[in-house]
Amino acid sequence: MSDPIYAYQDLERFALSIFEKIGCPSAQAKVATEVLLKADLRGIDSHGIARLSGYVRLWKKKRVNSTPNVRIVHESPSTAVVDGDSGLGLVVAPVAMEIAIEKARQAGTGWVSVKNSNHFGIAGYHAMMALQHDMIGMAMTNASPLVAPTFSVERLLGTNPIAVAIPADQQPPFVADFATTTAANGKLEILQRKNIEAPVGWVQTKTGMASTDPNEAKSGGALIPLGSDREHGSHKGFCLGAWVDIFSAVLSGANYGPWVPPFVAFLDPPSDPVGEGIGHFFGAMRVDAFRPAGEFKSHMDNWISRFRKAKTIEGQERVIIPGDPERETEQIRMREGIPINPKVVEDLKDLAASFGLQF
Amino acid sequence: MSDPIYAYQDLERFALSIFEKIGCPSAQAKVATEVLLKADLRGIDSHGIARLSGYVRLWKKKRVNSTPNVRIVHESPSTAVVDGDSGLGLVVAPVAMEIAIEKARQAGTGWVSVKNSNHFGIAGYHAMMALQHDMIGMAMTNASPLVAPTFSVERLLGTNPIAVAIPADQQPPFVADFATTTAANGKLEILQRKNIEAPVGWVQTKTGMASTDPNEAKSGGALIPLGSDREHGSHKGFCLGAWVDIFSAVLSGANYGPWVPPFVAFLDPPSDPVGEGIGHFFGAMRVDAFRPAGEFKSHMDNWISRFRKAKTIEGQERVIIPGDPERETEQIRMREGIPINPKVVEDLKDLAASFGLQF
Repeated sequence: MSDPIYAYQDLERFALSIFEKIGCPSAQAKVATEVLLKADLRGIDSHGIARLSGYVRLWKKKRVNSTPNVRIVHESPSTAVVDGDSGLGLVVAPVAMEIAIEKARQAGTGWVSVKNSNHFGIAGYHAMMALQHDMIGMAMTNASPLVAPTFSVERLLGTNPIAVAIPADQQPPFVADFATTTAANGKLEILQRKNIEAPVGWVQTKTGMASTDPNEAKSGGALIPLGSDREHGSHKGFCLGAWVDIFSAVLSGANYGPWVPPFVAFLDPPSDPVGEGIGHFFGAMRVDAFRPAGEFKSHMDNWISRFRKAKTIEGQERVIIPGDPERETEQIRMREGIPINPKVVEDLKDLAASFGLQF
Repeated sequence: MSDPIYAYQDLERFALSIFEKIGCPSAQAKVATEVLLKADLRGIDSHGIARLSGYVRLWKKKRVNSTPNVRIVHESPSTAVVDGDSGLGLVVAPVAMEIAIEKARQAGTGWVSVKNSNHFGIAGYHAMMALQHDMIGMAMTNASPLVAPTFSVERLLGTNPIAVAIPADQQPPFVADFATTTAANGKLEILQRKNIEAPVGWVQTKTGMASTDPNEAKSGGALIPLGSDREHGSHKGFCLGAWVDIFSAVLSGANYGPWVPPFVAFLDPPSDPVGEGIGHFFGAMRVDAFRPAGEFKSHMDNWISRFRKAKTIEGQERVIIPGDPERETEQIRMREGIPINPKVVEDLKDLAASFGLQF
């Protein structure tokens, strides 16, 4: 049985009304809705409207502030630290990225580390904000600890994604957006719902043994850094996740490593925080701070078309340029609607009812 | 039989005399020697004195200019593009990194993309230059195409390493330095010399099939991006390699992707270049452009000690902090000498003889 389909505009109306119900000022509710639903549009269903009730539960626990005063607390010509005032990451992150873009306008590049924030949706949304300004955009965030460093049984890092968005001219932009683990948690959630085993190398048991149970992280196990095992470079995936954690949280004064507060409201944050909230890191680089934008973009066209037409392994259709699948999904879903998992639909109906709304 | 051991000072004297013989001004010969031998000291033998004769062969072919005029050709307060004037990367890269550091002094961060350069030794050396200034350092470079993007049989990217160096206080710094492939080419060279098979997931045949032959890339095969296969995230490794390529070369005006000139002198560069030489990318971020350096470094100490003492999988001694193994090797080799592979010794003796020197 296929999932029911909802029009973007209907989901938009609903999410907006929920954000307003929890007290978000209208402009912020609008931004939060746009960021949230960009995930559904781009096919990253784990980060979209499926998370809406989770955000509301955090707000009920007073761990999300729906009227944050997002502000710069430290800066230099090309940098800033932003205090998110416990706001929704969906609201805090675009403000921080705008600051990075404005810094880049003046200084060539802008780099913003954020503390005291919450889950910010898909990293790609924020990185892509730079594109319309002929800038390269970057976005990273740390997250609740689910990942064991190579050789460890302890969960010390989040799936800590990195996004890099690079403009082209005639070609669509290059947009990489990936968890620094072998598989994103959302990929495991899909297997959990379908009751399918995970490939070896995605998760480990609580004693660090190989496992194919997608629920492993729910019983003390862990996700594995990109690379899967030491022999295949999991120490490099660990480096990437650590880098994201340090840029996002040690630079800003947020919580890092095992101190990052859990995303779920039923788990309390650690009682010995080392900082405030979770952390993000954003970058914007003006292309013409390096070379004329037209020149750069025309070489990007050449880069993209050369890689796109690379000779493939027999049976493979094409080499995928980062961002291609998400862009294609966005075009289809904007036109034909967005499939929502029945369990998520039920959850949204409950959420609606709790506010006297309909879904 | 174990490899013969050479004192650092003897290798230093020899490399210095070779760089002077090919016409490097004395100060540049000294820098090139220090960068080159840092690889041997840190245990990355593939990037050290083993490459010296290769650099000389490129110079003989006039593809390396031993008296380059390394200069800024474009800049903004926080960025620059540097033209390496076909110099040794060992000489060009430290100049570019110094520019990044000086930009960071003024603007908070500095970002330098380099064109018209050559192989720059280990990325970690350049990133670590930032540490003494209480800055975070980054270094990347593109390289001769040896790596096939996910689903492709064509070699379109180099092993494109990334290094990130982050200062701490009492703890040694965090220094990640890794190829964006499952295994660095140097790791394959070790297997080739010992005639040992590679793990599945390191290389593929010329038709894109799995292989354990470490010589695969010599007969049309390719190295594989970090992740090993699509199911284990090789598309993420491809994103990383592509990111390095674009920042290093499309931003600067160097050759990118399949157009990067081969490192070996017996293969000619492509006849249809899209830029000049190979490209690098460097970054320096002043820690106190984000928060007071003392605060940051004390949290880095906390980060490092927490991860270092993580509970390990049974049979594993400890969680390795990025940079630990290389630092330990450096201490030992500085004290006890550097083992050099007999084939490399022979090659260096030939090199010495060709200049009327002794090794």
